[in-house]
Amino acid sequence: MDRPANATPLNRLSARQVATGIRRRAFGIRDVVNACLARIRERDGVVRAWVDLDEDAIERQVSFAERTGGPLAGVPFGVKDVLDAAGWPTGMGSALYRGHAPRYDAGCVGQLRMAGGVVLGKTQTCEFAGIEPAPTTNPHDPSRTPGGSSSGSAAAVADGMVPLALGTQTGGSVLRPAAFCGVVGFKPTYGFHAVSGMKEAAHSFDTPGLFARTVDDIAMVHSLLMNEAEPELPAPAPRIGVPEGAIWDEVTAAVAGALRDVLAELARRGAEVVRLTLPPALRDLAEARAIVNAFERSRDLAGEWLADRDALGPSTFRIVERGFRITGSEYVAARRAIEGARAAASERFGDFDAVALPVTADVAPPGLGNTGDPRLQEGWTALHMPAMAIPVSATAAGLPIAVQLVARRFADRRLLAAALWIESNLGSRQPRAAGD
Amino acid sequence: MDRPANATPLNRLSARQVATGIRRRAFGIRDVVNACLARIRERDGVVRAWVDLDEDAIERQVSFAERTGGPLAGVPFGVKDVLDAAGWPTGMGSALYRGHAPRYDAGCVGQLRMAGGVVLGKTQTCEFAGIEPAPTTNPHDPSRTPGGSSSGSAAAVADGMVPLALGTQTGGSVLRPAAFCGVVGFKPTYGFHAVSGMKEAAHSFDTPGLFARTVDDIAMVHSLLMNEAEPELPAPAPRIGVPEGAIWDEVTAAVAGALRDVLAELARRGAEVVRLTLPPALRDLAEARAIVNAFERSRDLAGEWLADRDALGPSTFRIVERGFRITGSEYVAARRAIEGARAAASERFGDFDAVALPVTADVAPPGLGNTGDPRLQEGWTALHMPAMAIPVSATAAGLPIAVQLVARRFADRRLLAAALWIESNLGSRQPRAAGD
Repeated sequence: MDRPANATPLNRLSARQVATGIRRRAFGIRDVVNACLARIRERDGVVRAWVDLDEDAIERQVSFAERTGGPLAGVPFGVKDVLDAAGWPTGMGSALYRGHAPRYDAGCVGQLRMAGGVVLGKTQTCEFAGIEPAPTTNPHDPSRTPGGSSSGSAAAVADGMVPLALGTQTGGSVLRPAAFCGVVGFKPTYGFHAVSGMKEAAHSFDTPGLFARTVDDIAMVHSLLMNEAEPELPAPAPRIGVPEGAIWDEVTAAVAGALRDVLAELARRGAEVVRLTLPPALRDLAEARAIVNAFERSRDLAGEWLADRDALGPSTFRIVERGFRITGSEYVAARRAIEGARAAASERFGDFDAVALPVTADVAPPGLGNTGDPRLQEGWTALHMPAMAIPVSATAAGLPIAVQLVARRFADRRLLAAALWIESNLGSRQPRAAGD
Repeated sequence: MDRPANATPLNRLSARQVATGIRRRAFGIRDVVNACLARIRERDGVVRAWVDLDEDAIERQVSFAERTGGPLAGVPFGVKDVLDAAGWPTGMGSALYRGHAPRYDAGCVGQLRMAGGVVLGKTQTCEFAGIEPAPTTNPHDPSRTPGGSSSGSAAAVADGMVPLALGTQTGGSVLRPAAFCGVVGFKPTYGFHAVSGMKEAAHSFDTPGLFARTVDDIAMVHSLLMNEAEPELPAPAPRIGVPEGAIWDEVTAAVAGALRDVLAELARRGAEVVRLTLPPALRDLAEARAIVNAFERSRDLAGEWLADRDALGPSTFRIVERGFRITGSEYVAARRAIEGARAAASERFGDFDAVALPVTADVAPPGLGNTGDPRLQEGWTALHMPAMAIPVSATAAGLPIAVQLVARRFADRRLLAAALWIESNLGSRQPRAAGD
């Protein structure tokens, strides 16, 4: 290895930098993996992002990636433990699945490995991607939640343990932990990324998603999964909608102020920032979403409920019990209501490259017993719209603040282009983790 | 057992008759299961509907159902081998999954077992619910295909081996085998039945479905899965749309004539039968559907492809290879086109309780190397609309002919009510299997 002593440590490189460095032989796959493992050994006693590390399995992955090459050759990534990765058990964050061995990779894991990616291990998840917390802590303050349910994936990327991780979002399980941990989180349009080998939480909403430290990495990996060209650079200055009204009611002054400042800065740099009124159909979405969510969660866990309900965590138990009491006609009415809102939102959002909103009303709250409030994230998931969290600021105590960017369904590339423009104009605003 | 000697054999009873008889103690769960097993032993050497029969596992199911009771207590059912049933391996019709043991029931299997249903075993499926054929034969003529991919479930119900079976439909995998085998097949609105524990084929289209010998059984089981009241009886005379145009171009005189006769009969009995022009958006659906299907199949099998592609059957291999060459922009354009057609079809179909069409252009074709033509079924699957196949006639040689009933999304109960009216006016038109 022939790198200057003051270079970014290998575990802190972006996925693109890792892939490029390996292709140019600036360093080897094993060097990157070792740097990530060293960081994990140093910090995971506090962060608890990983379910377990199997060095033999990692060694097999490294050998495989060295042989196969590919655009992601040597890029280590974490896999949320509701997604299968061959060679690791899939634990689902639940006592019910302890030691459960899948035979093959989940679809999106397989695609990343086909491109040369290296599975470093499974990351902690709330039970069945719900709200029963994982043991993971926030890398910026171990007394605070990292958010959930993709807690381990967000924390591992934020803490420099891995440049890339896979998550899933049914409510706010990618965007909320991305915001709380200060990394970029991306949930594509529903159905765009493969769902095979993913344990269902509520199948009408379940969407695999990505965590990275740069928008550029997200664009690279999403384009690879979709077999499409990356958005062209330089991206044009975007048209950004900013909703008015009730969505801001509970947002703290710190978060609202940070977003106002950032939007003003983007406008100064050439973005068109326009006020927008959300369609009325979105107002009643929360109740319909809760009905579909509980109805489907109960049915998607019917086998587990039948055999082992007493081993479920209390919040999982409660939602399944509640879901089985919902009637079909309530469910169908809720599905119809969501569909109406979906059409209305797609129409209204079509005028913008991205609509900018808070991800969360506040920074990561204290305590590990609750992963935070999903209300500002979950509606867009139910509407099947692509959404991103991008860190834009931090409190004086170093807790990250993010903006949420949402676009109409199918407009993922347009959203990514807008986010790339924002990243190139703002630079990285990720606060360093406490351990740095 | 105290039943008259000329009563319907227990293996030929409907699910409702089984449940009622057991509740009234006319016979026991074990009697029904034994009658089904006897039929399987007698006939499965020819029909080959079952993957394997594990009598110990069945015994455990019987004991469980005797203890728990429930509305389906004692109703034996078959489970397509892409759906998990705890206690049986899930083979996926593929060498790759030989001996693969799931930990829990698929969601819909678990729900049926919670209601007292008895898993009798796994039924043969085309590889990964695709088109690589299962060994199953058509119960009406073992030289002919039973259709696919839910080949074993359709054949088992048709042959009197079990009153009820679960299948899945991504193209025409429930309705086509139902039509070829002469049983009732039902595919609900996309997302209505739980998909957990189901191996994905193409996730935007995959829909679990049901096989039974009566519409009444389908209505009973669907209502149970949805936690809603069964449609009220007597059902009112339905308004039935009959599309004109290209959809009939390749339909044989035998099938077209049988459907014409049946629709005339329904009109005489009070149904309103109205001609209908399909919206133009449906015309170009086939190509868009093929693109989404191949794109998603490749990604949903990415893990299997990476590790063991050479053990895939030739048709599975080809579609995965093709799917990985499709670009993201082709996929997104196809998703958009399907969504446009979905809106158009739902609007047009809203005027009818059911739209009546052929399920297939002809009866089950000779040969076991090909499961038949999916073109008349797959569009409705892509559009997420509920669809049923109901046997209405047979050729002189005893090969079944079915009508397809399709309704707008979310209108499953209205469709079932129309189908119940049809069943009560026509009576059962299922030809007996060759072995009877």
